[in-house]
Amino acid sequence: MKKFAIVLSGCGVQDGAEIHESVMAMLSVDMAGATYQLFAPNINQTRVINHLSGQPTSETRNVLVESARIARGNIKPLNEYNPSEFDAILFPGGFGAALNLSTFATEGANMSVNPDVEKAVKATHSAGKAIGAMCIAPVVIAKILGKVNVTIGNDSGVAAAISEFGSKHTNTHKGEVVEDGENKIFTTPCYMLDSSIKDIFEGATNLVQQILKSLSK
Amino acid sequence: MKKFAIVLSGCGVQDGAEIHESVMAMLSVDMAGATYQLFAPNINQTRVINHLSGQPTSETRNVLVESARIARGNIKPLNEYNPSEFDAILFPGGFGAALNLSTFATEGANMSVNPDVEKAVKATHSAGKAIGAMCIAPVVIAKILGKVNVTIGNDSGVAAAISEFGSKHTNTHKGEVVEDGENKIFTTPCYMLDSSIKDIFEGATNLVQQILKSLSK
Repeated sequence: MKKFAIVLSGCGVQDGAEIHESVMAMLSVDMAGATYQLFAPNINQTRVINHLSGQPTSETRNVLVESARIARGNIKPLNEYNPSEFDAILFPGGFGAALNLSTFATEGANMSVNPDVEKAVKATHSAGKAIGAMCIAPVVIAKILGKVNVTIGNDSGVAAAISEFGSKHTNTHKGEVVEDGENKIFTTPCYMLDSSIKDIFEGATNLVQQILKSLSK
Repeated sequence: MKKFAIVLSGCGVQDGAEIHESVMAMLSVDMAGATYQLFAPNINQTRVINHLSGQPTSETRNVLVESARIARGNIKPLNEYNPSEFDAILFPGGFGAALNLSTFATEGANMSVNPDVEKAVKATHSAGKAIGAMCIAPVVIAKILGKVNVTIGNDSGVAAAISEFGSKHTNTHKGEVVEDGENKIFTTPCYMLDSSIKDIFEGATNLVQQILKSLSK
């Protein structure tokens, strides 16, 4: 039975992990007969957004604690992730990937990456395991590894940043997956394109299936 | 195209709407070719639970504002719900149904129900529209309407409370739906039974399909 690590970045599209993408990643892994363990970095969120008004609040929330809402409490700090225990690591999207896992939302191509995230991605890549990323999260993978092939849909600004990291961006439609076979990196655009929730399910399913297919080779 | 109202009770199983159930309800409606509008009461949560530790915190959070995380901001206050605009109303579960939509978690069979929830359910029932409820949420429907047939799985304590309201409880297995045809009430146990996320998808899909079948009669 194949094992996935899924890395969350909070709970809510505007300041954390995109909830639908996170849940669809979990569903797709479970439906494929594989298992998952959730992880998140134990750090404070960069900001907290009222998702009704879209405005920032003065609250402080912790990425691991809020991610535990999606995980129903069953989640570990990302610094406990060990690629030898998994076949693949998956990053759902949401602004949390660009605010908490990295600083892409505020610094663009000059972004830095959370050290636990960088370590997890580099260790997974070195171990020859698969890496999946949805929505905006591929920009984090491209920054860490450079010289990889990914998609975030068709946003030219984000694609330009990916090019600056030495990576290649391929425009995609809803549900499509870009596979970088050499680096075992799999990406799909999800809510980076105008989508309904069934499109997210399709994208997550395609991503997980393509990873599992590559693992069985 | 059939229209569903989906009523959330926060964002997280321990103090709000169960996230997987909420997302699976939305996915099931979308996959069936129907549409949905999300609603939640504009009230403070009864409590806020740290989902990592399981312990209460001193924070104050609003049910509508937190539900907006699941809704990606596209949500309305429940007092704006009008059954004439919808074919069915759906209540996902989570402790929010027993803490915020009602007081079942703290008062058991002596529970009261949030006035906006009571009004929405009574108006939907009077209009002859369908009502769906998942997990623990059927207890709220049973309390409001009495003399209905529902399931919350096989928890004898909750089933006893449902009996006290004059309603009938039927034990069910994962994914099963109890249909009260006369009252157009449809219920399924979800996480009231030991389940994985694909079981929740199955339960939500069966619930939505059975509602749509009844609407086409």
